[in-house]
Amino acid sequence: MAKKLILRVVKIGGNIIDDTRRLDAFLADLAALQGAKILVHGGGKLATRLAEKLGVPQTLIEGRRVTDAETLRIVTMVYGGLVNKQIVAKLYALGCPSIGVCGADGDLLRAHRRQHANIDYGWVGDIDAVNAPLLDRWLGQGLTPVVAPLSHDGAGQLLNTNADTIAQEIAQAMSPAFHVELIYSFEKSGVLLDVNDENSRIASLRPGQYQELKASGVITAGMIPKLDSAFSALKKGVRRVIIGQAEHLAQLVDGTAGTSIVW
Amino acid sequence: MAKKLILRVVKIGGNIIDDTRRLDAFLADLAALQGAKILVHGGGKLATRLAEKLGVPQTLIEGRRVTDAETLRIVTMVYGGLVNKQIVAKLYALGCPSIGVCGADGDLLRAHRRQHANIDYGWVGDIDAVNAPLLDRWLGQGLTPVVAPLSHDGAGQLLNTNADTIAQEIAQAMSPAFHVELIYSFEKSGVLLDVNDENSRIASLRPGQYQELKASGVITAGMIPKLDSAFSALKKGVRRVIIGQAEHLAQLVDGTAGTSIVW
Repeated sequence: MAKKLILRVVKIGGNIIDDTRRLDAFLADLAALQGAKILVHGGGKLATRLAEKLGVPQTLIEGRRVTDAETLRIVTMVYGGLVNKQIVAKLYALGCPSIGVCGADGDLLRAHRRQHANIDYGWVGDIDAVNAPLLDRWLGQGLTPVVAPLSHDGAGQLLNTNADTIAQEIAQAMSPAFHVELIYSFEKSGVLLDVNDENSRIASLRPGQYQELKASGVITAGMIPKLDSAFSALKKGVRRVIIGQAEHLAQLVDGTAGTSIVW
Repeated sequence: MAKKLILRVVKIGGNIIDDTRRLDAFLADLAALQGAKILVHGGGKLATRLAEKLGVPQTLIEGRRVTDAETLRIVTMVYGGLVNKQIVAKLYALGCPSIGVCGADGDLLRAHRRQHANIDYGWVGDIDAVNAPLLDRWLGQGLTPVVAPLSHDGAGQLLNTNADTIAQEIAQAMSPAFHVELIYSFEKSGVLLDVNDENSRIASLRPGQYQELKASGVITAGMIPKLDSAFSALKKGVRRVIIGQAEHLAQLVDGTAGTSIVW
C-alpha cells in the first residue's frame, strides 16, 4: 500500500482573527507550510461586536452562545462572509490557492439541530456527516479549503457549529485517505503543568499520562473538553493532535512547540 | 464536433433577494431547470439597510455605490455571507446541489481596482479574468455555482463588483465550452415599447432593430447599458441573452416570456 500523504487540519481561534497583524503573520506561516492543509476558523469576537452594534442581545448558557434567528444572520455574515473571504483573499496574496466555504457549500457539513433535554441552544448544529470526497477533490486541485463554522441540515437551514468540533470531524473523516495531523491553536503555549507558567508545557501527552494528570488535578476543567476531543480524534484514526499557540505554527508542526497528543 | 451542452447563467437582482417568498419561488424554479446552470446574485438593499443600522453613510455617484472600507466589509458580509449561504442551503432543500463562492474563492474572478479620471469609486473592481476551468469542474460534479458579486485583485484585496457584469463575464468565459444562455432577471417583463405598459414587451430583439428603437427614442436611458452589454456578450460568443422577470424563469428559458436578445 502506498504511504499516505500528510494532511494538516488547522483550527484558528477567534482571538487571532480579531488582530490583523497576528492573523497576517499566521496566514503567512500557513501558506509556507508544505503539503495538504485545511483551515477551520472561528470569529467569535467580531460577531459579538456586530451583535452589540445592531442591538441584538447575546445569551450565553454555560459558556455557549445561544443562536437565535438574528444571531444566526450575524454569524452567517461574519463567519461565512467577512472572515472567510478576507482569509481567502489574503492566502492568494501569499501564493496559497484556497477556497472559502461553509458547511452548506457542496454539502460539506450535514448536521441536525442540537436537541437538549433542558436547554434550547437555538440554531446550533451537531454534525452528522462530512463530505470527505469533496475536500479530497479540492486538495487534489491544489486548493486549501478554508472552512467557516456553519453547517446545514439539508432542509434549507443553516446552523451555527463549533469550530473545534468541525476541525475534529474533518480530521476524522479525512483519516482513511491521509495521515492527518490536527492542530488546535489557542492562547496558551500548550498543555501546561502549571496553568500560570507558560514554560511548564508538556511536550507530548499519551492517554495513560493524561489520566494520571487529570486524577491528580494538574489538568484543569478548561482543558479537559479539548483533550477529550483530541483523544477521541486519535481513536478515530487521526495520527497526531497538536495543541499550542498560533504564532508558532511551523514549530507546532515540527514538534518543537505545543503539546503533541499521541496514542 | 460534439454538440455543446446548454449552460444557463442566471442573474437575480437585489429586489427579489429582499423578499423571502419571491426568492423561495425563484429558487424552486431554478432548481427545477434541467441542465447546467450558474446563479449570480446581487443583494443591494440588504447591504444598504445594514449600512444604515451601523451608521455607515452610503455615497452614490451617478447611481453607483462608492465602496469605502466600511462599505466593503458590509457587502462582504451581506453578499459573500448572508445572501450567498442562505441561497445555497435553500437550493439543497430543493434537491439542487450547489456551491456558494465569491470571486476570491478558487481565484474565480480576478480584477483590478477601478481607475477613473475624476471619480474615486473606492474598493470597486473591474474584472480581468474568469476562472472558467474551475466553473467547468464544479458543473461536471453536478454542482450549481452560486456567485456573490465580489472579486479580488490577487494581492489580498476584495473588491465590490457589479453582479450584471459578473454574469456577463462568466457567460462569455464559458462560451467556448458551452452553448451559453445569459438570463438577466429584473423588475420589468422585458424590453418594453412603452415603458409604462408591461404588455408592450418585445419578444425578441436583433441589433438592427435595437439601433432603430434607440434612434427613435423608444428604448430609454435605463435600458441602454443593459442592452449594450447584452449585445456585447453575444459578440463574444454567448448564444442568447434573455431579459425579463424572475417570477417567470421557466418561461424566460423556453422563450414565452421576456425579451430574447439575439444576434
